[in-house]
Amino acid sequence: MTDDKQFSSLDPQGEEWETLRAEGHRMLDMMVDNLMILRQQPVWQPTPETVRQRFRSAPVPKNGGSLEDFTAAFQQDVLPYGVGNRHPGFMGWVHGGGTAPGMLAEMLAAGLNANLGGRDHAPVEVERMVIRWAATLMGFPETASGLFVTGSSLANFIAVIVASRAVKDGLALRRSGVGGRPLVGYAARSAHGCISRAFDLAGLGSDALRLVPLDGAFRMDIAALQNMITADRSAGFQPFMVVGTAGTVDVGAIDPLADIATIAEAEGLWFHVDGAFGAMAALSPYYRPALAALEKADSLAFDFHKWAQVPYDAGCVIVRDPIRHAAAFAQTLSYLSREDRGLAAGAPWFCDLGPDLSRGFRALKVWATLSVYGTRELGRMVDHCCAVARHLAQRVEREPDLELMAPVTLDIVCFRLRSPDLTNEELDTLNAEVVKDVQESGIAAPSTTRINERLVVRAAIVNHRTVNDDVDRMVDAVLMFARQRGLRSA
Amino acid sequence: MTDDKQFSSLDPQGEEWETLRAEGHRMLDMMVDNLMILRQQPVWQPTPETVRQRFRSAPVPKNGGSLEDFTAAFQQDVLPYGVGNRHPGFMGWVHGGGTAPGMLAEMLAAGLNANLGGRDHAPVEVERMVIRWAATLMGFPETASGLFVTGSSLANFIAVIVASRAVKDGLALRRSGVGGRPLVGYAARSAHGCISRAFDLAGLGSDALRLVPLDGAFRMDIAALQNMITADRSAGFQPFMVVGTAGTVDVGAIDPLADIATIAEAEGLWFHVDGAFGAMAALSPYYRPALAALEKADSLAFDFHKWAQVPYDAGCVIVRDPIRHAAAFAQTLSYLSREDRGLAAGAPWFCDLGPDLSRGFRALKVWATLSVYGTRELGRMVDHCCAVARHLAQRVEREPDLELMAPVTLDIVCFRLRSPDLTNEELDTLNAEVVKDVQESGIAAPSTTRINERLVVRAAIVNHRTVNDDVDRMVDAVLMFARQRGLRSA
Ligand SMILES: Cc1ncc(COP(=O)(O)O)c(C=O)c1O
Ligand SMILES: Cc1ncc(COP(=O)(O)O)c(C=O)c1O
Repeated sequence: MTDDKQFSSLDPQGEEWETLRAEGHRMLDMMVDNLMILRQQPVWQPTPETVRQRFRSAPVPKNGGSLEDFTAAFQQDVLPYGVGNRHPGFMGWVHGGGTAPGMLAEMLAAGLNANLGGRDHAPVEVERMVIRWAATLMGFPETASGLFVTGSSLANFIAVIVASRAVKDGLALRRSGVGGRPLVGYAARSAHGCISRAFDLAGLGSDALRLVPLDGAFRMDIAALQNMITADRSAGFQPFMVVGTAGTVDVGAIDPLADIATIAEAEGLWFHVDGAFGAMAALSPYYRPALAALEKADSLAFDFHKWAQVPYDAGCVIVRDPIRHAAAFAQTLSYLSREDRGLAAGAPWFCDLGPDLSRGFRALKVWATLSVYGTRELGRMVDHCCAVARHLAQRVEREPDLELMAPVTLDIVCFRLRSPDLTNEELDTLNAEVVKDVQESGIAAPSTTRINERLVVRAAIVNHRTVNDDVDRMVDAVLMFARQRGLRSA
Repeated sequence: MTDDKQFSSLDPQGEEWETLRAEGHRMLDMMVDNLMILRQQPVWQPTPETVRQRFRSAPVPKNGGSLEDFTAAFQQDVLPYGVGNRHPGFMGWVHGGGTAPGMLAEMLAAGLNANLGGRDHAPVEVERMVIRWAATLMGFPETASGLFVTGSSLANFIAVIVASRAVKDGLALRRSGVGGRPLVGYAARSAHGCISRAFDLAGLGSDALRLVPLDGAFRMDIAALQNMITADRSAGFQPFMVVGTAGTVDVGAIDPLADIATIAEAEGLWFHVDGAFGAMAALSPYYRPALAALEKADSLAFDFHKWAQVPYDAGCVIVRDPIRHAAAFAQTLSYLSREDRGLAAGAPWFCDLGPDLSRGFRALKVWATLSVYGTRELGRMVDHCCAVARHLAQRVEREPDLELMAPVTLDIVCFRLRSPDLTNEELDTLNAEVVKDVQESGIAAPSTTRINERLVVRAAIVNHRTVNDDVDRMVDAVLMFARQRGLRSA
């Protein structure tokens, strides 16, 4: 054993505190400076091979080093080679841009180092407060239950667990397993892959998620939903849940939530809404009506790290019925052994509401974001992103070499290079290669997806920094690289 | 719709950047100051009713406020009323103490705002590097696969998913559900509750986790394990997994991992180790031999936020066979649509290895911790905590009014107030009340657990700041409050 006398703690000793403090201030300045010049940087640049090799060959650090050295390595090898989602030119995926207050709040959270699994302390009260706010904003009552998780993937998984335990005698499944019941659920074909993954992980199997066809506007076809439920019932299955999406990942469509709610009620199904990014539109007076049916949902999954611009990660799940929520997760024994006073008081705990026991203080950065900006300004930000998306759609419609591939409901625009000279397959390849060209140019970062089998360019305007000029620059770049690849204008 | 002209971004404009920067520096100073005077504060104090009511009644912030106001609210209403785990007197639960470099690294991560779900960027390389280091440190090959998650609860769940999909034709379960197979697994009765919860969430049902009795040293009884497997097989069940614990939550025992490995191999079972805190003992040359059988484990769950002192949350799962790991989680379609170049290159992605798609940059604070302290110093910290635990055990054995309730393997000590005048039930109550008295006094924060039905005081020495004096003060307080409650010395 090593000599214990020499160990005091991992904290700085004496003067070392001031060295640490000074380095901390330098780190903070580095980040603020970096945020101030985002626009001057490329959106994204590939990680150089030398940097990659440094990471791939670095040996386990046996001996400690200085914080300065760590910061220098971060500044040199990480900071310039992020994914680019903070940059106004990033529109590839539904990623939030982050904010400086969010960053600072996260520093406070890490310094406090709270574990939000349970027990009686102020951070737990903060999470309860922010969940109450989130519930209210999203059309749920103040009494609704909820918690922060990594992201909507986990939030949707939690909803599947709660919904499957909410069927008649469903709590017995917790002990006996889901095997005895032919449970099936429904979501549109456009639903995010994490819904079918949730069915897989919950042991129901992804085949137990029935994928409902879309109508002409990329929304769940309600008649088809009704027919599928009826057919499943006659075939002996037990329908238990229907998932509507508010803001589909590919085109940003909103499923007909009110119609889904009506069917769910008539059929006795759990009505869950995946509003990963789209739920934030509830903060805009303009878009709120489209989400009015959230008031009828049994549960909702959404992310603060997407359209709410809170730093990663900050997913959220809200469940209307707090009893059913806790019943699906609480472990009876521990639940009952909570104390009346002292540190172990204050049940129910967040670990009774989800799969996590140890949990960081995600609620703090969300609190900071809501309190610094206010919900009104965040709603205006949502409107702004949608306005930029409409600007992009109009530009696309004016360009003879581009065609709009889906209606623009919220903040996602799908379009495609077109040419009378090329086959559909050739156009798929051209669009895909041009998107990679644009990404590698550092000018903008759109992505691709498939719509009706065709590969299209997708731009998701989720970043609060993106303005009309940014999407124009992206379109210019798409056209430029397309011409470089031989596209002749129509 | 609100007037879009007025919206620019959520960033500060012009001079406001310097206001923000100055406030950031004040926030940093506040946290460093706070860390420097931890010892002068009570370990924990109940959140005052006025503070609680402020959180419970605060309306949704419609209009934005200043960052200063947010910071002031945090400083006044949150910072003093944390759970206390940073304080050297905290020994109630297996919580890490955190470090200043960990806090600063988290600020960098939040400022960079990377999403580690996938794509091609340097943060992903950092996570791969740290996972490679973790694998090496824990007796896994460099080629092992792994990722960061919230905590060991999720890490253990991931292991159950991978193990259940690794049985013959097990990948078919992903689509068909787990119902068709009578899968059963094994863990000792002392296993953490999250293992049985993982069976519940995976749809296997918690009854499918067989709880193996303990031997006299609170470790899994190997003969009983063998018998249970044999009995299950003859009853038509399909054993697929055995979970050994390295560091049980109640007493810190280490299951006979080598024996479990032998049985797992002979029976063709997946061998998973839950080393939530105990795995860190592998960094100590003194304790490493007790964990040698990690080299035979198929998977390992452990936390950096516990004994490695990384700020919450930072759980980790390692899987020896990277193919089986990805096969259990990757969604084939998306997996195949990864690009050869551009932002969408670089498969496999971390979202192919666990339930999360969006994921924060937990790896950065772990990198910072490993690089600033080095694995040798972290190993000495582990030794130090264990030495403090032994000091406490010796003190308990010298006190006539106390009895040691379990052997001390690592850093957890369980003891109990005793008295010839009181029944076992009266002693249960006395011990429970005294623990709450001590917690509320702010002197120390031990917890309680049950051992052989009896309620005992538990002290987990997981905080790098805890020294012998702290545990002596805790014992003094226990004895003092016991006397106040009428305990007459033996
Ligand atoms: C509609 C939808 N649902 C779910 C998800 C998954 O959310 P997360 O990445 O937070 O897990 C996404 C991600 O883009 C999404 O767009
Ligand atoms: C042995 C053991 N396993 C699992 C866990 C759960 O880990 P987490 O709280 O990180 O989810 C704990 C927590 O104390 C533990 O001690």
